[in-house]
Amino acid sequence: MPRVVFVHGGAGRWSAIKDRRAYEKALREAALEGYKALLNGSAVDAVEAAIKYLEDSGLFNAGKGAVLNFDGEIEMDAGIMYSKGLRVGAVACVRNVKNPIVLARKVMELESHILITGKIATALMKSFGIKELKENEIRKDRVERFLRLKEEFKKSGKVPYSIIKGCIRHYVRVMELSEVETVGAVALDAEGDLAAGASTGGIWLKAPGRIGDSPIPGAGYYADNIGAASATGIGEIILRTCACIRTCMLMALGLNPQDATRAVVNYVTEVMGRNNIGIIAIDHKGRIGCAYNTEGMARAYMRDGMRAPDVRIVP
Amino acid sequence: MPRVVFVHGGAGRWSAIKDRRAYEKALREAALEGYKALLNGSAVDAVEAAIKYLEDSGLFNAGKGAVLNFDGEIEMDAGIMYSKGLRVGAVACVRNVKNPIVLARKVMELESHILITGKIATALMKSFGIKELKENEIRKDRVERFLRLKEEFKKSGKVPYSIIKGCIRHYVRVMELSEVETVGAVALDAEGDLAAGASTGGIWLKAPGRIGDSPIPGAGYYADNIGAASATGIGEIILRTCACIRTCMLMALGLNPQDATRAVVNYVTEVMGRNNIGIIAIDHKGRIGCAYNTEGMARAYMRDGMRAPDVRIVP
Repeated sequence: MPRVVFVHGGAGRWSAIKDRRAYEKALREAALEGYKALLNGSAVDAVEAAIKYLEDSGLFNAGKGAVLNFDGEIEMDAGIMYSKGLRVGAVACVRNVKNPIVLARKVMELESHILITGKIATALMKSFGIKELKENEIRKDRVERFLRLKEEFKKSGKVPYSIIKGCIRHYVRVMELSEVETVGAVALDAEGDLAAGASTGGIWLKAPGRIGDSPIPGAGYYADNIGAASATGIGEIILRTCACIRTCMLMALGLNPQDATRAVVNYVTEVMGRNNIGIIAIDHKGRIGCAYNTEGMARAYMRDGMRAPDVRIVP
Repeated sequence: MPRVVFVHGGAGRWSAIKDRRAYEKALREAALEGYKALLNGSAVDAVEAAIKYLEDSGLFNAGKGAVLNFDGEIEMDAGIMYSKGLRVGAVACVRNVKNPIVLARKVMELESHILITGKIATALMKSFGIKELKENEIRKDRVERFLRLKEEFKKSGKVPYSIIKGCIRHYVRVMELSEVETVGAVALDAEGDLAAGASTGGIWLKAPGRIGDSPIPGAGYYADNIGAASATGIGEIILRTCACIRTCMLMALGLNPQDATRAVVNYVTEVMGRNNIGIIAIDHKGRIGCAYNTEGMARAYMRDGMRAPDVRIVP
């Protein structure tokens, strides 16, 4: 099998990005990290390594770069899946974890509960010696933006501080303002096994306790023996359309990854409108595909025989 | 359209049940409650009413009858989906809520975040005036069984009290001992809209913070314009196979509900073994289907023209 890793750094309003090169560099490095992991390891090692790199970069809405919730806190979601045995590990609404994807991988290896939240997640983090995300690691511009957004929302009068109702209706608008996005990866290893994963800080000013698509197998990521997919966009829409299992089922029906991702993005656009989703996919033959209904989708892939990763934002 | 509601009370070891009649009666009444709701309301009203009845019965592993987690507490998951607009509402690991399905329905109506956990869920419950589950409502035999199971686990030596690892590996064994199960429902209304839902207390001695399939669209339940499905069994296996969106996609490809549920149960059995899943489904023509790889699956349906619900456990 040709070894391949394909990473993304979100679908969204890429025209708003000032320093594109920094993003492109991070995606290139993440693809290289993933590829390096593939040389001596499995597809799931590659997905973990690539996503960990993007979490640590602080550029994306994941790990150090995660956006803040309505209480000004970071709450992250992440999940990983391995085609071998359809194994899954995922964490929802975790705090203080430097690398949610590493914790998700550990959950997968426990082979028991696969989706966890709350105190058990923190206990596992400590038990496995996974690093904490310290408060001084949170980006200052994120905190400033949080204060600005909250002020704006107050002024609009529409959004009193209430997690009960009202405020959370407007997150789609917040999302539109936002150029930062979820990260994800898919990979195929030399054994022919596939993996997929996703990691995110969710949505600006989300209510604490809101779970998006990134920790949910079938929604934010999926991997079986035929193909693997990872999605990004508005979590609620990806959850409602089960974008990644949909993509994998189309690949199982014989579509190549490009046609499968395009078909699912077209379906989501038809039922939910534009500017809400991007998907990357890979199949067991090492073919890749990518589709989105946003301005662009930042991504990079690297396969056996290539000298350097192929990095793209648009088209 | 013929109005139809189809409810279930779990797939599992039904030979262990002593008082089958009580379960059959509860399922019959739940189907009637759902059908009554259909006469003046929508499919989503019917699913909510039927599941609420089963939660309140205390017979099943949901609402008052929920099993206890490793700390001896009740933590419940529930979700509901409406084909009209693919709307979803779901709550994960909620405590002290008398009817998680009613709370999930309220979350759906907020049209913002669709999957919530933690404090926000409690805040919503209070805000909407949804009743609390009081400690004296928890069944005494559940508490006694909790103490017995915990003692057994201690004696086996295999399972020290640790939510970190070890104990949670054995929940499948606990599951095998257990005759109580998740509840769910699907419905088709006079407008041709479909709905699906699920509600559960999860698994005996689960780690606090474990989320199963019941609050996850695509896993424990799914509804689109073609069909609706609700699943029960080992949550982790249903999550990893995305059983309900799989069933709905097969119906969208032209399979009738009986063939679709059978195909998905066969797939799950092939990749994950037996004794782990049951699915009920309905399509937009009002046809129903049910398949399981366990001893039996308790269910009842009621449609226009029938005098009384059809109730079955095996076959």
